[in-house]
Amino acid sequence: MEYNFIAGGICAPKGFAAAGVHCGIRKNHSKLDLALIKADVRCAAAGVFTTNKVCGAPIKVDRAHLTDGYAQAILVNSGNANTCAANGVALAEECCQLVGQALGVSPEDVLPASTGVIGQPMVIDPFAAGIPAAAEKLAATPAGSWDAATAIMTTDTHQKEYAVQFQLGGKTCTLGAIGKGSGMIAPNMATMLAFYTTDAAVSPAMLQKALRQVVPGTYNQMSVDLDTSTNDTLLILASGLAGNPVIEAEGPDYDAFVAALTAIAEKMCAAHAGDGEGATHLITCEVTGAPDLKTARAVSRSVVCSNLFKAAVFGRDANWGRILCAIGYTPGDFSIDKVCVWLSSAAGEVYVCENAAYHPYSEEEAAKVLAEHDILVKVDMGLGEASAKAWGCDLTYDYVKINGDYRT
Amino acid sequence: MEYNFIAGGICAPKGFAAAGVHCGIRKNHSKLDLALIKADVRCAAAGVFTTNKVCGAPIKVDRAHLTDGYAQAILVNSGNANTCAANGVALAEECCQLVGQALGVSPEDVLPASTGVIGQPMVIDPFAAGIPAAAEKLAATPAGSWDAATAIMTTDTHQKEYAVQFQLGGKTCTLGAIGKGSGMIAPNMATMLAFYTTDAAVSPAMLQKALRQVVPGTYNQMSVDLDTSTNDTLLILASGLAGNPVIEAEGPDYDAFVAALTAIAEKMCAAHAGDGEGATHLITCEVTGAPDLKTARAVSRSVVCSNLFKAAVFGRDANWGRILCAIGYTPGDFSIDKVCVWLSSAAGEVYVCENAAYHPYSEEEAAKVLAEHDILVKVDMGLGEASAKAWGCDLTYDYVKINGDYRT
Repeated sequence: MEYNFIAGGICAPKGFAAAGVHCGIRKNHSKLDLALIKADVRCAAAGVFTTNKVCGAPIKVDRAHLTDGYAQAILVNSGNANTCAANGVALAEECCQLVGQALGVSPEDVLPASTGVIGQPMVIDPFAAGIPAAAEKLAATPAGSWDAATAIMTTDTHQKEYAVQFQLGGKTCTLGAIGKGSGMIAPNMATMLAFYTTDAAVSPAMLQKALRQVVPGTYNQMSVDLDTSTNDTLLILASGLAGNPVIEAEGPDYDAFVAALTAIAEKMCAAHAGDGEGATHLITCEVTGAPDLKTARAVSRSVVCSNLFKAAVFGRDANWGRILCAIGYTPGDFSIDKVCVWLSSAAGEVYVCENAAYHPYSEEEAAKVLAEHDILVKVDMGLGEASAKAWGCDLTYDYVKINGDYRT
Repeated sequence: MEYNFIAGGICAPKGFAAAGVHCGIRKNHSKLDLALIKADVRCAAAGVFTTNKVCGAPIKVDRAHLTDGYAQAILVNSGNANTCAANGVALAEECCQLVGQALGVSPEDVLPASTGVIGQPMVIDPFAAGIPAAAEKLAATPAGSWDAATAIMTTDTHQKEYAVQFQLGGKTCTLGAIGKGSGMIAPNMATMLAFYTTDAAVSPAMLQKALRQVVPGTYNQMSVDLDTSTNDTLLILASGLAGNPVIEAEGPDYDAFVAALTAIAEKMCAAHAGDGEGATHLITCEVTGAPDLKTARAVSRSVVCSNLFKAAVFGRDANWGRILCAIGYTPGDFSIDKVCVWLSSAAGEVYVCENAAYHPYSEEEAAKVLAEHDILVKVDMGLGEASAKAWGCDLTYDYVKINGDYRT
């Protein structure tokens, strides 16, 4: 299905304003470090979080604040993860109090998120000054979304935001998203944060269900470096202001909403992976002909996660043996005898492996294919009907440089 | 227990000769590319192999030749993995025939192994010339072992060989090893190959049992890049010429043999990991206080496998939050609340994390600790009595460089 992607990010749906300010968590005064998102009304709300047993204090607060299924504001800081830090939960709750006061909403309707260094002490002062400043600056405009998308960036080289329109019950609905994260992603760390807004009317339960349905095939299929962050967070707020009949059960409207959510999540995953720390290539792996969905997902993840293949892509080397190797060590009991592999990009396509053996191709042509930024690895397993995608990036000198002196 | 490590590698035990020659698989004439190991007598023999579903042709032949529990020679080439290549098994079997003719042993008593690029066609010609040349050069001397250790190297920067002496039933026994592999190790690829010889008398069944007992805590705890090779192979030959009563069941002699095997395997793992592709540091992680052995092993592996922590060590940055992060995403249900972490080396020790939170330390002192080549990460989980070790290396520019243009 073709979607109408529009500008405006998280402020494109009706009823949302956003802002980004510099509040002093980061030393660089020109870097925004605090984002605020506010809905005009209490929204149905849902979230998914890291599976890491070491988990950021804001996530504990989010889980508590989401128990009733509603929220009205999101506060995000970069520069400090508020993880393994003393009094982290108390500080995150105090931040919610400050947001409540500044916006006239209940503190229990505020969802906090943090990204940055783990284990550093955090103080309330920058928040005490920054939250009222951000509230003052809130704007229901593309600029508001852009500033929020900017404030949550860490090692990201560019903002990540999308918005898409779709129809529900004869009403035009909009779904917007911003996100950050380019390292510690598996879906994982320097932390992946994503915030979605929509004016579609969806019950909290169906909103949570939609997230749980979409994330396994999108965010959980994205990897930069296999390091699952302590702070990964995806939150969604649904204002209901589009006026569609509330989605309260499965059916065509729910399916349409899930499809739109999938469309934007796939775009976001490609944006995150393509901006992976130090990346010079986005690597998408599409697996077809798998015996089942689990295997399809696992095999595509194995390929985009292989350090050796990632380094080969950086070197524009069509070292397909490393793709076979990665497929072969994917957990599960399946045959690799019928595996075929193609390398594809805007510059063309080369058929490099047929039935798990070399298929004649021109290295020169392959090098041309791999010179593009966006590389597609197509794997057909020849076993069944299941398919899946995964997103990753190449492994480069700059990944090592960025992470060798991240704190300095 | 203290062991008496001696010189001589695989030729230190009684009854073994070895050689390395250049036979033309590699273009560089100064690089030895074929190793031959010969025992004076038929030996009890055992092996463990890659779990990758894509597996080298020599491994299929090894499995067949090991079914009777005996072997007398090992043939190893570097430069081509004989994997995903047409007629790979037939070629490996033909090599065994050639070795059989040259040495006057049964082809079924020859164990082949290969390492190098995957998916490249392989021809018999270099073997036809090289095997007689290697047979001619066989020497039961330290030089013979050294040449064999040299011929199996790929991206390794130095030879890896050890030998250790121990007592069994009043007899002095010797166990020797050579190995190669510095990338695709998890235990994994650019391929880890290891060949052990011993003059201890051990039945084939107990030899296999000893390998299966030692490998999970040693070779399976070593990682350079998480890429499990298609060709990983560990073979052991036991000549019995030391004259000890044959080990045919569990008991004190078996335990002594396993202990010696463990001692040398740990040395070899440190040598492999410390010579990881592009590595500037060996990272050993010792986990204590784990609730069970499985968790101890998994947690120590997580730490040495974390790309983010590996890059931090390259940058000599005591970014302990990444250690916590890696512990936290280790599969399993355990608490991280009591985790304490120390960074240690010949230059000293810093206590960086107490009960999963920051423990005050001097960054200057930590940088001194991390300036050493051999880094020890000590993790106490505060939960139980189990412990384990894992070996890895840092992630460097040179890893990317080596793997970005491996084939060119």
